[in-house]
Amino acid sequence: MSMVTLELDDIYQLAYDVMLANGCDRDNAAALADIICRAERDGSHSHGLFRVPGYVKALRSGKVDGKAKPTVKHVTPAVIQIDGNGCFAPLAQAVGLPLLADATGKIGIAALSLVGIHHFAALWPETEYLADRGFVGLACTAYMPMVAPAGSKEALFGTNPISFAWPRPGHGPVVYDMATAAMAMGDVQIAARDGHDVPPGTGLDADGNPSTDPAAIAKGVLLPFGGYKGSAIALMVELLAAGLTGEQFSYEARATDNKDGGPPRGGEMIIGMSPDIIAGPNWQDHVEAFMQKMTSLDGVRMPGARRHKNRLDTGPRQINAALVDTIKELV
Amino acid sequence: MSMVTLELDDIYQLAYDVMLANGCDRDNAAALADIICRAERDGSHSHGLFRVPGYVKALRSGKVDGKAKPTVKHVTPAVIQIDGNGCFAPLAQAVGLPLLADATGKIGIAALSLVGIHHFAALWPETEYLADRGFVGLACTAYMPMVAPAGSKEALFGTNPISFAWPRPGHGPVVYDMATAAMAMGDVQIAARDGHDVPPGTGLDADGNPSTDPAAIAKGVLLPFGGYKGSAIALMVELLAAGLTGEQFSYEARATDNKDGGPPRGGEMIIGMSPDIIAGPNWQDHVEAFMQKMTSLDGVRMPGARRHKNRLDTGPRQINAALVDTIKELV
Repeated sequence: MSMVTLELDDIYQLAYDVMLANGCDRDNAAALADIICRAERDGSHSHGLFRVPGYVKALRSGKVDGKAKPTVKHVTPAVIQIDGNGCFAPLAQAVGLPLLADATGKIGIAALSLVGIHHFAALWPETEYLADRGFVGLACTAYMPMVAPAGSKEALFGTNPISFAWPRPGHGPVVYDMATAAMAMGDVQIAARDGHDVPPGTGLDADGNPSTDPAAIAKGVLLPFGGYKGSAIALMVELLAAGLTGEQFSYEARATDNKDGGPPRGGEMIIGMSPDIIAGPNWQDHVEAFMQKMTSLDGVRMPGARRHKNRLDTGPRQINAALVDTIKELV
Repeated sequence: MSMVTLELDDIYQLAYDVMLANGCDRDNAAALADIICRAERDGSHSHGLFRVPGYVKALRSGKVDGKAKPTVKHVTPAVIQIDGNGCFAPLAQAVGLPLLADATGKIGIAALSLVGIHHFAALWPETEYLADRGFVGLACTAYMPMVAPAGSKEALFGTNPISFAWPRPGHGPVVYDMATAAMAMGDVQIAARDGHDVPPGTGLDADGNPSTDPAAIAKGVLLPFGGYKGSAIALMVELLAAGLTGEQFSYEARATDNKDGGPPRGGEMIIGMSPDIIAGPNWQDHVEAFMQKMTSLDGVRMPGARRHKNRLDTGPRQINAALVDTIKELV
C-alpha cells in the first residue's frame, strides 16, 4: 500500500477544506476536521480520513446540513439537550460538552442528550473530553439495525457502541469505546476477503444458523458480544441512545435513511459524573492504587493506553496515498 | 428434595424473626425480610431464604451491625450519599431510594452513592424501584476478587453485577441483573458436582490455563463474560461501585474481610434518570413501539419477564424443607 506523509496540521487542513468545499460552514468544518485529525493522531484510522468520503456523500445528498446551527435547551440544571438540526455530531458535541462539563462540575452528575445529529465518528472524544476535566464519562449511540438480539435471528440493534472514561490525573485517562456487536461488519468482510474463519458467536448466516464463515455472516446478521449478557448491554445502549433521547431507534433510522452511504439521523446520550463531588477529594489516591494494582498484572493492557501512546508523537503521520487522492478529488 | 409450603407472609415473618433473634432492630429486620420475601416471590431463590444463614453469620460475627442507622448526606440536588454505618444494604436502600426517586423526578438525573454497607442480595430490587416510578435505573456493586481481567491470570474484579431497568407502564419493567463474570462460582461448583463441562471462556485453572473443566476452574479464577469487551464492563462496574463511591475495591474488601462467610463491606452506585424530563412526554409510545418490535422477534425473551410472571402468583411457595429447618434453628 503506497503511503504519503502528512503533518497533523495538514490532515486537519485537508479535512477542513473538503468539508468547506462540500457545503459546510466554518463551524461545522472545524468540528469535523478536529475529530478526524484527532483520530489520525491517535492511530484510530478507521475513524479518521477513511470516513471523509462518507461524510461528503451525506453532505452532497442533502441528508446532512453542513450549515446547521445546533440549538441548546437547558432542561434542568442537570439535563442539557442539544438539537443538531441535522448536523454531523461533532459540532453538536463541541457546543454541548462544555455545558455538560460545567453542569457536572456544579451538581455532580449531568446528562447531555443529543438529537437531530448524524454520528459517524468514534465515541472516545466525548468521554475523554470529560475525563480530561476530572469527570467520569459514559456515552452511547445507536445506528442501523445489524445485530440480532440473543436468541433471535433478525437484526434489531445497531452495532451500538458504548464508551466509558475514567480520569487519571498524571496519566492518560482509562478509556474504552467498543461496539456491542461481537465484531464490526467491516472486520467480518475483511476476514471473508482473506479467507479466515471468525470465532463462534460472531454471527448467523442468511438462514439464521450460527456460522464461523465470514462470507456467510456478511449475508446474515451479526450477534452481540458475549451472548445473552452482551445482548443486555446492547439493549441498554439502544434504550439510552434512542429511548432516553427521544431520537430514532436503529430500526427507525433504517426506515428513514436515504441510503447515501453516510450515517442516518440518530441520538446520543452522554453522562458526566464528578468523583470530586460524589466520592470526595480523596478519590485520586484511592483509585490510583487500584490502577497500579491492575496494571501490575501480567497480560493486562489498560483500555485507551495504545491511543495515548500514539498521541505523544506529534510528528507526521503515514496516510494511505490512494485515500488522500480520493479526498483531494472531493475538494 | 423435600419441600414445605409457605405463604409469602410466612416467608416474610420467618426472615423477620430470624433477623430480630440475631441482633437486628426492627428497621433492619424489616428491610431484610422484605428483600428476601420479594426474591422468593419472584422465584429468585438464590437471593431468598438461601441467603439467611450467611446473613446470620455476618451478624453473629459482629461484622455487620443489625442496629445500624444509616445517615443521609444531600451532597448536591443531584447527589445523595447514604452511609449505612455497617448495616446490610437493604436498609440503606430503603432510606435512600425514595430520596433518589425524588431527586430524579425533579432534576432528571441523580446519583445515590451507598457506602458502609454489606450487599448480599440481588440488584433488581433497586432498579425496579426506580422503574416502577417511571424512571430508568442503573445499579452496580463490587465484591470479593474472583474474576481475572481479560488477558491476565489473577483475580482482581468481583463478580461485579450490573442491573438496568427501563419503565414500561402497563407492563412489568424491562429489568436485568447480571454478574459480569462469565458464570457464577456457584454454578461452576454445581457443574463440577454433576460432571458437566463449562463453556470455553468461563475460567482458568490454578496454573492460569483456559479450561472447560469446572473442578479445575473452581481451584483457579473466573473470567469476565464476553472476553475483552465484558472485561471492560466489569472494570466500569468496579470503578463506579468503588472508585465513584469511595468505598472498597474488591481487592480491598478481601483484605479487610473477617471471612465469616457473609458479605464484605462495599459500596453501591445507583443512578436514576427520568425519560419524562430528558426525552419529553412522548417517550412512552415511542419506546413501547420498540418493545413491541423486539418482543415480536422469535426467540427473544425480555429481561425480567419470568420474574414478573412469577410475581403475579400471590399464592404459597414451595421451599426446601431442610433450608427452612436450618433457618428455624437460627431463630
